[in-house]
Amino acid sequence: MKACILAIGSEMLTPFRVDTNSLFITERLNAIGYDVRLKAVVGDDVDELADVLRAAIAWADLIVITGGLGPTEDDVTRDAVARVYDMPLDVDEAIADRIRDRFARRGMTMPEINRRQAMVPRGAVVLENPNGTAPGLWIERGRTAMVLLPGPPREMKPMLEGVVRDRLASRSGTACLCRRVLKITGRAESDVDAHAQPTYAKWTSAPIPISTTILAVLGQIELHLTAQAADPDAAQAALDAAVLEMQQVLGPSVYSTDGRSLETVVGDLLRQHTLTIAVAESCTGGLLASRLTDVPGSSDYVERGVVCYSNRSKTELVGVPAALIAEHGAVSEPVARAMAEGIRSRAATNIGIGITGIAGPGGGTPEKPVGTVSVAVICDDETRVRTFQFIGGRDMVKFQAAQAALNMTRLAVMKIQGPREWAERR
Amino acid sequence: MKACILAIGSEMLTPFRVDTNSLFITERLNAIGYDVRLKAVVGDDVDELADVLRAAIAWADLIVITGGLGPTEDDVTRDAVARVYDMPLDVDEAIADRIRDRFARRGMTMPEINRRQAMVPRGAVVLENPNGTAPGLWIERGRTAMVLLPGPPREMKPMLEGVVRDRLASRSGTACLCRRVLKITGRAESDVDAHAQPTYAKWTSAPIPISTTILAVLGQIELHLTAQAADPDAAQAALDAAVLEMQQVLGPSVYSTDGRSLETVVGDLLRQHTLTIAVAESCTGGLLASRLTDVPGSSDYVERGVVCYSNRSKTELVGVPAALIAEHGAVSEPVARAMAEGIRSRAATNIGIGITGIAGPGGGTPEKPVGTVSVAVICDDETRVRTFQFIGGRDMVKFQAAQAALNMTRLAVMKIQGPREWAERR
Repeated sequence: MKACILAIGSEMLTPFRVDTNSLFITERLNAIGYDVRLKAVVGDDVDELADVLRAAIAWADLIVITGGLGPTEDDVTRDAVARVYDMPLDVDEAIADRIRDRFARRGMTMPEINRRQAMVPRGAVVLENPNGTAPGLWIERGRTAMVLLPGPPREMKPMLEGVVRDRLASRSGTACLCRRVLKITGRAESDVDAHAQPTYAKWTSAPIPISTTILAVLGQIELHLTAQAADPDAAQAALDAAVLEMQQVLGPSVYSTDGRSLETVVGDLLRQHTLTIAVAESCTGGLLASRLTDVPGSSDYVERGVVCYSNRSKTELVGVPAALIAEHGAVSEPVARAMAEGIRSRAATNIGIGITGIAGPGGGTPEKPVGTVSVAVICDDETRVRTFQFIGGRDMVKFQAAQAALNMTRLAVMKIQGPREWAERR
Repeated sequence: MKACILAIGSEMLTPFRVDTNSLFITERLNAIGYDVRLKAVVGDDVDELADVLRAAIAWADLIVITGGLGPTEDDVTRDAVARVYDMPLDVDEAIADRIRDRFARRGMTMPEINRRQAMVPRGAVVLENPNGTAPGLWIERGRTAMVLLPGPPREMKPMLEGVVRDRLASRSGTACLCRRVLKITGRAESDVDAHAQPTYAKWTSAPIPISTTILAVLGQIELHLTAQAADPDAAQAALDAAVLEMQQVLGPSVYSTDGRSLETVVGDLLRQHTLTIAVAESCTGGLLASRLTDVPGSSDYVERGVVCYSNRSKTELVGVPAALIAEHGAVSEPVARAMAEGIRSRAATNIGIGITGIAGPGGGTPEKPVGTVSVAVICDDETRVRTFQFIGGRDMVKFQAAQAALNMTRLAVMKIQGPREWAERR
């Protein structure tokens, strides 16, 4: 089944905005066997949108449209669809009442303009929007189903889930395009591919073929495995087996096979081992603490963090001796270790982390260029210290340093001696 | 002049990848007067791409295509263009030689498959690619010019610049589509629009008309002003005047008119007033410190930060009396104030910030629901404390709280009593 996703809104045709709704929609459609063949962004122009719709109707089994359902003249999606299918637009008084109620509950009177949102092409099915005024619409004609959804993600997402459950899955048969993602950190893309390729090459000729894509994103490599099969259970079983096989090939550098982020994996490990953590950061400037505390419930194991940006704060907050800084420099393994020791003993946690480095763009020297970062992780009675040489701009160095510290923590908690990381200073 | 941007590649039709080349291309095209009316992502299918091209040729003055110029069977852009225009494809031996040389310089033999990259639709102009093997192509037919560029940004960008300079600008005349963005925080979209509308409504009928788009993004509102004029200087002057007028209407809630982020604006203010800063964070978990230190050179004014997640750490790190926490609760204005005072006196900085709140999803009470955040900013001898009620998930509450703290700092440094913010608890 072929799908087309259209995002409507002139603001997404500027240099400042990108359509991200389509990523969520693609994921949900793939899961029920729809193959997304075209995505497009169209401005708030009824003629242009009508042209794009006519072209898509010629081939698509499903067209998902987000945006352009607001109350203003700029919101042209309803009009364009009505024109293409030659359906008259009627005001649905039940919808108008619901919108009026929504305003009334906030002590406001519905502006007359909002009646536009109650316009429905005759014959269309109205999809309720629990989180906003614009209802969605469902129109089926010939081979093509069309779903109109509002643009804001918090309105669009639950409505799509409803449509997927109620109307789309049955339409697509049971074929399923299933995906699994292995997330890997600490290794180069070429290294991962060299090890993984002999294994995934075999999968393409398996009874349920699995295709593999390798993607390098900042601080990690992702292996995307995709299986398509009439029986979703069989596809999932084939993917489960493939994931296991690949984990054996790639070893502990695979940190996630179920979509969890590295900070979530670390948090789950800490909770499982009833460990607490405290961090002392210099060059990452709070990013490590912020990522750890992005995880709901992290107050159970994150005791505190300090950002000791100045040398004085390194001494005052975590007791790094000024003499140690003078001897080795603020960016050095002894200082990273002292930071980890200091924060751990003051916070009385199981784990202490120290990070010190040069995020750039200034501050580099020939000996310690921009991107040099030392990380120390102390977990119970074991101390691990490593120095990395990251590439990229300030935010990239910060992210990779936090990523390396999280990964060192993961391996330390699991008592695994990880392999030497590719970004480590030789 | 109407433009269409096409990104070719099946990987951009997965849930994991988004086309970002088009943002750069849009910016460059706008600057020379092209209006981007449609963007699309098409997979590696020659028939489907040909269909999309035929539809675009019907209306577009310019079609920019990125990707699909590699050497494999999956790279179909050349074939689709040749088919649509019925141009035979010839091997250009000069290109083949250049590719062969490129391989030879690395001590490698050109694989036979790379000869595909030397295929040129007869009559097309070849655009050199200094950073890769795939040359670009330029084809002009009737009203429509078509530019084929490779997908990797480091190859695409310099080639587009070359085309823009040499071929496109003259084609479009000298008209320029110029944009300015006003960034506003602390106010609701409807409030900003109600105040701004009478002003921007007049601009549409000015000698150089300016169109205005209002966009609400997390923690801020953006007003995008666009002017199109034959004389770029006149367009810029009209925009300058419009920006000034709008700043007068909206007052100090406009924090940036030149693209700078809020943390950069705050950093520039601190540097300009030679002030130093230290922060004590609870619910934001280090995000405020991380945003402050995202700015290059921030070590000049960021002295330290602490993330006092546990109550014990609030007492130990910034001296919040346990009795104060017991009396008012950890999330309260007195505790926020004590955190700001504690970090400021310990760090001996000009400015101290304290943030305490409930990021959720757990931890809310009827009295202090999820999203309740108290922020205290002490700047020299003035203390400002406010309590907000933010909406959204954990990461949204964290971001908005950091945003509010940055904005309170901005106004405190400027000695401006900002208006009551819309998210403030009534």
